[in-house]
Amino acid sequence: MTALVLLDYTSVAIFALTGALVASRAQLDIVGFAFLACLTGLGGGTLRDLLLNRAPIWIADPTYLGFGCAAAVLVFFSAHLIESRYTAILWLDALALPVAVAAGAGVAASLGFGWPMIVVMGIVTGCGGGLMRDVVANEVPLVLKQGELYVTCALAGSGALACALWLGLPAPIPALACAAVTFLLRAGSLGFGWRLPVYKARPPRNK
Amino acid sequence: MTALVLLDYTSVAIFALTGALVASRAQLDIVGFAFLACLTGLGGGTLRDLLLNRAPIWIADPTYLGFGCAAAVLVFFSAHLIESRYTAILWLDALALPVAVAAGAGVAASLGFGWPMIVVMGIVTGCGGGLMRDVVANEVPLVLKQGELYVTCALAGSGALACALWLGLPAPIPALACAAVTFLLRAGSLGFGWRLPVYKARPPRNK
Amino acid sequence: MTALVLLDYTSVAIFALTGALVASRAQLDIVGFAFLACLTGLGGGTLRDLLLNRAPIWIADPTYLGFGCAAAVLVFFSAHLIESRYTAILWLDALALPVAVAAGAGVAASLGFGWPMIVVMGIVTGCGGGLMRDVVANEVPLVLKQGELYVTCALAGSGALACALWLGLPAPIPALACAAVTFLLRAGSLGFGWRLPVYKARPPRNK
Repeated sequence: MTALVLLDYTSVAIFALTGALVASRAQLDIVGFAFLACLTGLGGGTLRDLLLNRAPIWIADPTYLGFGCAAAVLVFFSAHLIESRYTAILWLDALALPVAVAAGAGVAASLGFGWPMIVVMGIVTGCGGGLMRDVVANEVPLVLKQGELYVTCALAGSGALACALWLGLPAPIPALACAAVTFLLRAGSLGFGWRLPVYKARPPRNK
Repeated sequence: MTALVLLDYTSVAIFALTGALVASRAQLDIVGFAFLACLTGLGGGTLRDLLLNRAPIWIADPTYLGFGCAAAVLVFFSAHLIESRYTAILWLDALALPVAVAAGAGVAASLGFGWPMIVVMGIVTGCGGGLMRDVVANEVPLVLKQGELYVTCALAGSGALACALWLGLPAPIPALACAAVTFLLRAGSLGFGWRLPVYKARPPRNK
Repeated sequence: MTALVLLDYTSVAIFALTGALVASRAQLDIVGFAFLACLTGLGGGTLRDLLLNRAPIWIADPTYLGFGCAAAVLVFFSAHLIESRYTAILWLDALALPVAVAAGAGVAASLGFGWPMIVVMGIVTGCGGGLMRDVVANEVPLVLKQGELYVTCALAGSGALACALWLGLPAPIPALACAAVTFLLRAGSLGFGWRLPVYKARPPRNK
């Protein structure tokens, strides 16, 4: 479980940074920074733990909340140094997503679930925090942004983890494969515009 | 429990169609379709199960997720055939609502709760998925649309189920009464404009 | 536990009034009033109980739902008597917040949690219901309103409760200190514009 906890810590810390950056765009005070940082950092894992009917991991280990508060303070005093906060949010989010997906899918695997639940828990853990951040801050959810891969990356990454486990690959490989696939797809989407075909509205009638 | 599971399956499948149709209006890709379809189909039942402090039913039975994905694929390749997607969403939602209310109220009754919890669980299960769909997709929640019956239908339907149980009517009647009352009220509201009196703003002062 | 239950009842009743007032601003019908009143009144405590992995308190005690419905009826027939509904919402919310924070922090303390969890549960219980009300009704969340103290009040109040407990003060004092600190800060923010420094956007470059 130690490796899983480390993954959780890392994803919480990076996601918390994106939450604090969103707070800086909304010009909140330091407590608002900490609130959005903790919501974003802990949201996905909390949703996963609620769905698995167990107490969220930060209830027993307040260190997680410390990461959120530290991210809030760090961003509050340094966000003015960043050239484009929106770009920083996008790329930090792209870094946090693979780690959170690996943590979520890994927890489901360690509990003995089959591949459907591994994939779903990877998606929930990866996308939950960012979704809550965007719904509460009233931004367009990254999850639903048209013409970008987001949920797809989490899906592919946790699928990779499930495949690696099915092939019987030893311990760190499935998580690494998961993180690599998720990050490469998301980075490709951000940097090179990779996308799936979107639903095309029909042409107007009678014309 | 078999009848309840069948009700759950049916409501999940129909609600998932409405989620996929909302995704088509937002021009998402196929994974976005599946995401919104699963959120809408499973949202209400998941909320009910969380409130009842048990693991959501789809954790142990991934078939539910299969319904969501099938609905996504079906809509992705056929939504262009539909004359008005918004009308389709409204009426499919009106079909799914009674089934979900009956499933939710039935679960509460089968667990031995009294009428207040039967009514609340009917409302939560019926209205939760659609509410999540609309909040995430940033549409005006059907639940809160002014001058339409929605929560009221769920309330009346689960009330009918509680009454039928209290009268000691045998097994399929309470669920049928619930679905019939819910559907008739909702259809009447959509088709004939049935409504409750809304809160009237006071007339302007000094005039 | 009796004092805690009384606090819970009080905060549910006052928060429910704010939910019903928001419903009156959205011109909903009586069922919409009851829906928003129950969501607002019960939202924070429900979130707290889900996070603590126990069934929400109103599952076993439907009296809570009765408060929500009573508030809905009361407001439906008397909201036209109120000079400014928005001011009424703000100040009722300011009355409910301290009570809910004290109830939430008190529950965490009574379960033997340390100060981080006491503070977090105070914030979650105090701010959760209002946040749900505002997200569902599509208003700007009070929690995130720029230049006002809100989460900060809950933070300071539950911190005061944790301090009072740490000092070993006898039974009603910690809860009273919590409510007093929360209310004074919130009232000061509403009445006198007290605030924390907000994040200042950098000045435009090259100018």
